[in-house]
Amino acid sequence: MIVTDHILKAFDADLQDLRRRISEMGGIAEKMLVDGITALVRKDTALAQSVIAADGRLDILQREVEEHAILMIARRQPLAVDLRETISVIRVSGDVERIGDLAKNIAKRAHAISGQFQPQKVVAGLEHMSDLAMGQLKDVLDAYAERDDAKALDVWRRDGQIDALYTSLFRELLTYMMEDPRNISFCTHLLFVAKNVERIGDHTTNVAETIHYLVTGETLTLERPKNDGSSYAVVEENV
Amino acid sequence: MIVTDHILKAFDADLQDLRRRISEMGGIAEKMLVDGITALVRKDTALAQSVIAADGRLDILQREVEEHAILMIARRQPLAVDLRETISVIRVSGDVERIGDLAKNIAKRAHAISGQFQPQKVVAGLEHMSDLAMGQLKDVLDAYAERDDAKALDVWRRDGQIDALYTSLFRELLTYMMEDPRNISFCTHLLFVAKNVERIGDHTTNVAETIHYLVTGETLTLERPKNDGSSYAVVEENV
Repeated sequence: MIVTDHILKAFDADLQDLRRRISEMGGIAEKMLVDGITALVRKDTALAQSVIAADGRLDILQREVEEHAILMIARRQPLAVDLRETISVIRVSGDVERIGDLAKNIAKRAHAISGQFQPQKVVAGLEHMSDLAMGQLKDVLDAYAERDDAKALDVWRRDGQIDALYTSLFRELLTYMMEDPRNISFCTHLLFVAKNVERIGDHTTNVAETIHYLVTGETLTLERPKNDGSSYAVVEENV
Repeated sequence: MIVTDHILKAFDADLQDLRRRISEMGGIAEKMLVDGITALVRKDTALAQSVIAADGRLDILQREVEEHAILMIARRQPLAVDLRETISVIRVSGDVERIGDLAKNIAKRAHAISGQFQPQKVVAGLEHMSDLAMGQLKDVLDAYAERDDAKALDVWRRDGQIDALYTSLFRELLTYMMEDPRNISFCTHLLFVAKNVERIGDHTTNVAETIHYLVTGETLTLERPKNDGSSYAVVEENV
């Protein structure tokens, strides 16, 4: 019994350590997203460079968390909620790491468009979209830390807003490009930035699904509330 | 000893089963990529629809493979190469599933541009790029089936070609857009298609890295041969 107790405590301590590292990863990813968008809007290439540099730490943390979690499964044979905890660690760290990749790509594009004019209206649309994604990211990381299924489901439901905003921004950017060929180069980069933010939203939704599985033991089988029609979007030229 | 033998055989049988399912997943992803590009080039919306429909099967297979592999780790506590085998199954199935997602997105865009003119030159560039990605995918799936580290490393090295092609296609598409605003809508979709193919290349590189880890027990620490400069690309207008 004492041995069992010891094993349980060792498992819990390991899990605590992994969750601390995921919390560190979440903090890095949040900062990368905010700084990436700020670098883009303010054409701040030094800030963009710091976002690009931060991604390395995130990759290392993710690899460590994954390896450690798999060793825990192999060594301690967790069952039920302990197994779900360990699997969730692997999944959440994977999503947070990819959010970092996407933020890094946004920062790279800050370099490309730093010399170019950016119409205030599309930039505002992009900022609005990234504020929503940032809110999703913060809330889903809180929901994970607090094992709060209701909060996770709320994030999951809200992702449709980001998708809808992306589709309207997609059309707007295309219209801008048609109005003046000088807009094409930076609008193209902004299209990819918007797509990256939309994908960050998708990853927060993945995390929400993982939390639901962790807390309830069940997989969310509902269709996601998708409003991204941009892949189907056709914009006619303005003439 | 008989019991140990029995456990080993049960583990091997489970692993065989998982590898069969990954092989099935690989076949589906290959077909989705070929059909997705064909649907786009021939403006075949029925074929595009079949690609979109095929993705569901891939998602289910991936989820099953992942769950099964984690249960194997928990129940049988595999060590050394057996543990690497099981981890590799999880990673490879994740990459193949995402290749399917990207092919599905290509197929969706076939709908959007089906009514629009496509200049032969950019379509040829896109086909060339997807032929390379298709070659990478076939080779890396073979390398996985045959545990062939040399073949995997060859795929890993070749990915730079796809990235270089993507960067040149990116510039070409932007130039087209600047020449005539009527090109903007479909060129934008082709930009995203090209990006998707480039990302498919990245996932084949991930699989190659997994194979290297599986066969040698070591993680590839070299920098990837990246030639994707498109995030930094600035194209001046043609006037």
